Amino acid sequence: MDKFCFGVDIGGTSVKMGLFDERGSLYEKWSIATNLNEYGKSILADIAESIRDKQEKFNIRQENILGIGIGVPGPIQGDGIVYKCVNLGWDVVDVTKILEDISGLRVTVGNDASVAALGEAFMGSAKGYESVVMVTLGTGVGGGLIYKGEIINGAMGAGGEIGHINMSMSETQQCGCGNRGCLEQYASATGVVRRANQLLNDKSLSSEFPSSLRGKGNLTAEEIFNAAKEGDVIAQRTVEETGEMLGRAMAQIACIFNPRIFVIGGGMAQAGTILLDTIKKYFIKSAFHATKETEFVFASLGNDAGIYGGAKLIIG
Amino acid sequence: MDKFCFGVDIGGTSVKMGLFDERGSLYEKWSIATNLNEYGKSILADIAESIRDKQEKFNIRQENILGIGIGVPGPIQGDGIVYKCVNLGWDVVDVTKILEDISGLRVTVGNDASVAALGEAFMGSAKGYESVVMVTLGTGVGGGLIYKGEIINGAMGAGGEIGHINMSMSETQQCGCGNRGCLEQYASATGVVRRANQLLNDKSLSSEFPSSLRGKGNLTAEEIFNAAKEGDVIAQRTVEETGEMLGRAMAQIACIFNPRIFVIGGGMAQAGTILLDTIKKYFIKSAFHATKETEFVFASLGNDAGIYGGAKLIIG
Repeated sequence: MDKFCFGVDIGGTSVKMGLFDERGSLYEKWSIATNLNEYGKSILADIAESIRDKQEKFNIRQENILGIGIGVPGPIQGDGIVYKCVNLGWDVVDVTKILEDISGLRVTVGNDASVAALGEAFMGSAKGYESVVMVTLGTGVGGGLIYKGEIINGAMGAGGEIGHINMSMSETQQCGCGNRGCLEQYASATGVVRRANQLLNDKSLSSEFPSSLRGKGNLTAEEIFNAAKEGDVIAQRTVEETGEMLGRAMAQIACIFNPRIFVIGGGMAQAGTILLDTIKKYFIKSAFHATKETEFVFASLGNDAGIYGGAKLIIG
Repeated sequence: MDKFCFGVDIGGTSVKMGLFDERGSLYEKWSIATNLNEYGKSILADIAESIRDKQEKFNIRQENILGIGIGVPGPIQGDGIVYKCVNLGWDVVDVTKILEDISGLRVTVGNDASVAALGEAFMGSAKGYESVVMVTLGTGVGGGLIYKGEIINGAMGAGGEIGHINMSMSETQQCGCGNRGCLEQYASATGVVRRANQLLNDKSLSSEFPSSLRGKGNLTAEEIFNAAKEGDVIAQRTVEETGEMLGRAMAQIACIFNPRIFVIGGGMAQAGTILLDTIKKYFIKSAFHATKETEFVFASLGNDAGIYGGAKLIIG
């Protein structure tokens, strides 16, 4: 009889889930709504119930399920305890223990960005690579370090928190984390919009460069990348700066952890080669000579990276 | 019968060696001169001969020797091949194969700074810690990442090459590696002297601050730290800048690899608390909140860290 496992990716809106066999083939994927009522207290019970339903549908006996691997949007320490998960309303939650008790299955927990990185290293763009760093460019900048098929969580669960690498000592605005000058302030979707607005409001530039973005109201990162592709100078300057910050940060990662490959994912990866080429240009410029051959790819699993990573947490 | 192993640390002047039992207790340590003639071609044979002598002296049978663990001052890739080792005159040398062939023993090779880090994690200041970063402040700035008792070599052997983290985009002078603005240019012994000389020659400062270092000729990092302790303003400013660069770099390492502890070693660690306190001040200032509790210690094994790390490479 085949063995199975479940990969779960908890987000602030929905929980994505997948049923996998022990070789990592996806049998079925589905999602349920994330119930944020009462500090998200029913989230884990909802997951257990949904898994039980699927188990019945496919008539899988409990002893043939290897476990549940789960990604959570918060810092996870070695013991599988989540310390404050703002998006879900959680304070300190022992995810492993609670979900094991409800489901009767083995549970392994990881940070969502790290679990997505594990998914890409398991079945995505970085399949077969021993050392991988994934950079997720979304509302924030997340990341994950994979080494020999395992996540490096870090001693305080901050392994791969690359959005908070300090990139500028002269930044005056504050990052969500409380510091000033974090990579996330320049290279997230929010950061790109922030910088574009700063450049648009810069009086010393306004006379010099007309811009299609001026007076548009609420800009999005997508609009900025599209304008850059069409030659808008302010948008191009924003993209250049974003790519420079990412390229420099990745050069630093390269002479610390020295991965073989960088995987770039998240919504902003949709910008495509205009972003990737800029990142690579600045990476090559500041990378330590031994690391200049580091590879760069876009993520390939999209929203499924998390459930694949969850499965890998169990398959090992 | 006890099993034994040898830890070896190849330097540009001498090769340090130690005989260990399988629990990592040091039985005897000694050193031989590094023979740099003819591109260092006899170094590995000299090591094998010295080990054979020690084996005979203690009457240890070949089957009771687990192997030789060896640190080499150059980048090592996964296969144990050294790619260019300038200090020894080596080009590409397959250390594992050559030394195994001569000695008839199992050989494991690592980068010297990483092997020293492994030694500190095995039997030194970071004993018992799962994730460790050692920062070695000598003529250059070296480093090593240890995770679960193993060195993270990195895909191109550049794991822990933290001396080449880019810390300044405005640096005009070149680092030995060819880049500009590397940590090593500010935080190595050479870098400290360079920066002190720049500050001493800065006309805008000379009228403001008298300095005991002025007109001294060839300064050393030790003289600069001593002057700082005695209140010399130029020296204090140099130390402040060194500590700031190190503290900021370590904050970056903390939100990438997130070690539990930083071990500070190398000759410049002798400067003591004046340096460590400055590093910590700037670390706390720019560290990601989850990592602010990272511990800092000085290395405790001194010149023996390399041989302990070599032994650990074999003991596993």
